[in-house]
This record gives sequence, structure tokens and C-alpha cells, in this order.
Amino acid sequence: MNDTSELPGFAFIDDTFVPIKEARIPILDWGFLRSDATYDVVHVWQGSFFRLNEHLDRFFASMSSLRLDCGYSKPEVASILGQCVMRAGLDDSYVEMTCTRGHSPTFSRDPRDAKNRFIAFSLPFSWIIAPGDREEGLNIAISNIRRIPPEAIDPAVKNYHWLDLVMGLYNAYDRNAQNVILTDGQGNVTEGPGFNIFVISNGVASTPETGMLEGVTRQTAIELLEEINVPTTFKPVPVEEVKSADEVFVTSTAGGIMAVTTIDGKLVGNGRMGTITRILTDLYWNAHDREEWCDRVEDVITS
Amino acid sequence: MNDTSELPGFAFIDDTFVPIKEARIPILDWGFLRSDATYDVVHVWQGSFFRLNEHLDRFFASMSSLRLDCGYSKPEVASILGQCVMRAGLDDSYVEMTCTRGHSPTFSRDPRDAKNRFIAFSLPFSWIIAPGDREEGLNIAISNIRRIPPEAIDPAVKNYHWLDLVMGLYNAYDRNAQNVILTDGQGNVTEGPGFNIFVISNGVASTPETGMLEGVTRQTAIELLEEINVPTTFKPVPVEEVKSADEVFVTSTAGGIMAVTTIDGKLVGNGRMGTITRILTDLYWNAHDREEWCDRVEDVITS
Repeated sequence: MNDTSELPGFAFIDDTFVPIKEARIPILDWGFLRSDATYDVVHVWQGSFFRLNEHLDRFFASMSSLRLDCGYSKPEVASILGQCVMRAGLDDSYVEMTCTRGHSPTFSRDPRDAKNRFIAFSLPFSWIIAPGDREEGLNIAISNIRRIPPEAIDPAVKNYHWLDLVMGLYNAYDRNAQNVILTDGQGNVTEGPGFNIFVISNGVASTPETGMLEGVTRQTAIELLEEINVPTTFKPVPVEEVKSADEVFVTSTAGGIMAVTTIDGKLVGNGRMGTITRILTDLYWNAHDREEWCDRVEDVITS
Repeated sequence: MNDTSELPGFAFIDDTFVPIKEARIPILDWGFLRSDATYDVVHVWQGSFFRLNEHLDRFFASMSSLRLDCGYSKPEVASILGQCVMRAGLDDSYVEMTCTRGHSPTFSRDPRDAKNRFIAFSLPFSWIIAPGDREEGLNIAISNIRRIPPEAIDPAVKNYHWLDLVMGLYNAYDRNAQNVILTDGQGNVTEGPGFNIFVISNGVASTPETGMLEGVTRQTAIELLEEINVPTTFKPVPVEEVKSADEVFVTSTAGGIMAVTTIDGKLVGNGRMGTITRILTDLYWNAHDREEWCDRVEDVITS
């Protein structure tokens, strides 16, 4: 069916390392049948994990919120992730860790009867926008589909509830855009599939403060903006403010800082990557040699 | 890990029939990593599918909404379901059909690159409340967690976005209840994990009209209530109306019509299964020999 035989990558599932093409979960796992799971994604760049501790902290906090227990400590999870990357032979990698509810041996409907399952896998680094197109920037649409609200599902707990985002993507494709941002049902933007949004107007950055995942790359952007004396305001960001901004960018582990140059068919500013976005993008990639944010893959692997 | 080796059941995945314990999907399938999938559940009772056509119609409508194509026609899906039941040797069975987005061979992030995957499986009949406890009725809690709203995800498209329902279940367990009903954020009930709700007051039934799945068992209950001259009103049903109702029951393929006798620790009526609920429950099980609603398993299997 789906041919992943050419895709480099390694997985860890049911206490065993396997090539990614062989990694499968039981169809009865509630991580699939109820999307009852949490996950996190960290990247490896030139042989080093970037901000691994922040991702591990969030993953463990998410599991705690959902009353999940992956059965491994943070150093053990780090070591498993490192081995997935090492076995795949990847210098730059997209590394995912997941804890699912598992399932009950009797298929009872009670989640307390389930034995939780831990899965990890490495793949080649994933880009929301290809590096060659980064200069051109993203063409996004803003969808009327509402992002699942925090009163239903806590967006701070990273989860696989993406149907709203996927349907938003199809909306965007129908309008000749490459990607999508969903709103909160009250005229403010929230997030896109796997990324946060920032707008810059008059030298000040703004980003939503609720209704979205608090991304680690979002946090990195906030810290790097501070270093270049661009303050960030956390507040509801109306769609109109996004459309009239001087610069717009999105942040994701899958690609870092990415300029948005077209929104709903209209150019952002002059339609080119903005000055602050450009400085920030360079800072972001340069920050991949900062010791405090980096852990060499071989160093997190314990025997 | 999770031992399902004792569980009778058969699955169909990647064009092959396998015992349920061997049925696994690739971890990269977006049906798992994005919960990008739709499904339906039909039951077999004493060798016959119950209202199979209604379930197939809904499944195909759901796939169309999500731009999914399972690659099989309705009669082909019916035949696969029948074979899953026959191979498992089950007279009474819970039968699930699923279509996932699949995944892109290159792990691109574009859902249009994916080849969709069809899965089906049979298991022993599943009960939200065990038959022996049916007389006693369910003890449910009403949670403040909001059901994912229709503006985010269309609830008429049956989906695996259940984290709100699962967290609601934990809320209910914490309050010594067996199950849960979520609200719409405006003080009205919506649905529980896999079931719809009805209240009866002064001989009239009411059930929510939006914000929940339009269950086939819900539809069956409406039709059977009509046969015994109990009209059903479709309207927002406030929590207070549920708590002060003469009778409350829930409907699901996993168990049929089930009385609710305790809500948030308070008895419904006199705390026993209500008269109309009892008549309706009997009618429901007796309706399993109505020709127009039944298809013998062997009759839907084509060579």
C-alpha cells in the first residue's frame, strides 16, 4: 500500500527498535480508535537535539494531564530518541515521541483498564516549507473553521486532534493557498497544522496567548526577539490585524521560523520576507550551536 | 504488551484478513498521527447485521465529507464486514469499519499525497452497560468539559476525536459515576462516549438536535417511540431538564437502549428503569427480527 520502504527512519515500539517501515501499532490501541494519546516532536540538527529538555518537560506534563504513564523516565526517553536517530543514521531528523492509552485486554470501554504504550521514531527532518522556498515565504489562507476550543481539549497538551486543521488545509488548497490558519470563532487567529503565528507591526511582535499549543519554537522566537529588542505582546490577534501587519511569520519544529508573504491572496507588506523575520530566521539557525540548547545525539544515549 | 490473544475477532487490513491480535497499522498513518479518519460501527445480533444499510450510508457520507475514498463499494464493504464476522465465528458482534488518510510515501505534510487505507474488524458484542446491570441502569455524571463544537469538527461525521470524552470519563470516575455526558458550553447536554441521550417528561421525549453524532440507534429509538405514540422533540436539552426528567436513557450500537437511573449522584425519578424506557428496550431487542432492518451475515458475503 503506502510505500515507505525508501524512507530512512527508525522506531521504538513495544520495547523494540525496528526500521520505520516495519513499525505498526495494534488497530485496537485507543491511541488510534479514540485518539487517546499525547506526543511531542523534537528535532536534531547537525547531530544535536535542539531544546530537548523543553520537549521532554512538555511531553511528561502532557502525559500527566491525560493520566498516561509511558513507563520510562526522561533520561530513558532521551536515550531511546537518540538511538532512533543513531540507528537511522540521520544528521538532521524529525523525532517524535508518543504515549497512547493502549487498550484493554478484554476490549472493555474503560480507559483505566488499558496498559499505556510508548512509541518513538526518527525520520528525516521535515519542512513545512522547503528550504529553497523559504525566501519566497508561505501563501496561507485563514479558514472559518474554528480550532477545537480549550474548553473541549486543552491545546497545551499536544494532541492528534487534527481534523479541523486537515479540513482547513483542504479549504486552503481550494483557494490556491499552501497552508492554513484557523480562528477561535471570535475573529482571532489561533494556529495552523503544527505551527504558531506571529505578526509584527511598528516594531512590536504579537502572538495569540490562548487557544493554541505553546510551541517550543514559539518560545525560542520570543526569546530571540527579546535579544534583538523586539518585544512580544501576548493577546488575541484579530484576522484583520494579521492581514494589515508589516510582517507575519510562523514557527514550528518542522522548519523553524518561516515568513508568510501572502494571506488570503493578498500580499503581506510588499510581499517579501520582512526585515525582522529575516534577522530572526538567521538567529534561529545560528542558535543551533548554543551549548545550552543543544545535546549531541551520542551524549543522550545511555547504555 | 496488551494481551488480546484471547479475544475472538478478525480484521481486514491492506487487503488481507488477519486474526484481530495480528492487525496493526503503520505508525505513520495519519489516521493515527492526525486522527485523520472516519469510522462506523454496526452490530450483528444472532447472526444478522442490524440496520447495515444506514451504517454504510453514513460511513460513505462521512468519507465524502473528509475527502476520503476507501476504494471499495458499499456491497464490497458489506461483504468484507460479513467475512470478518464469519471468520471470527461470532453470532453477536461489534463490527467496525474505518477509512484513514493513510500517509504520504515521502512523509510530506500534504494529505492529498496520501493513499487512503480501509480497515474493518469484528469483535464480540460490546456493552456500555453489562446486560446483567441493565435493569439497575447507568450512574452518569454531567461534565463541565465541552464537547468539541460543530464549528470545529462536524459531529455528523463519525470521528475518533474523543479526548474530551475520555477526560470526561475520568471526571465521572472521580465522582463515582460509571459514565459521562458532555455539555455544549451553554448548559445543554450533547452526548457521551459513543452514545446519545434522551429525556422523557410528561410522556414526551426530547433529545439534542445539534452538537452530537446522529446515531443509528438514536434514529431507531425515535422510530420505535413513534410506534408507541411517544413523540420526540428535537431541541437543546438543558442539564436541569435532564436532572428533573421522569426518565432518561441513552442509545448506542454498543448496548442498544440503556436506562440512566442516577445523574450526578441524584436519582432519576424513583431511581428505577422508567416505564417507557422498559417498553422501548424490549421493543428494540424484539426489532432484531424485523426483516427490513436485518441482513443475515452469510447473505452479505459475495464471492
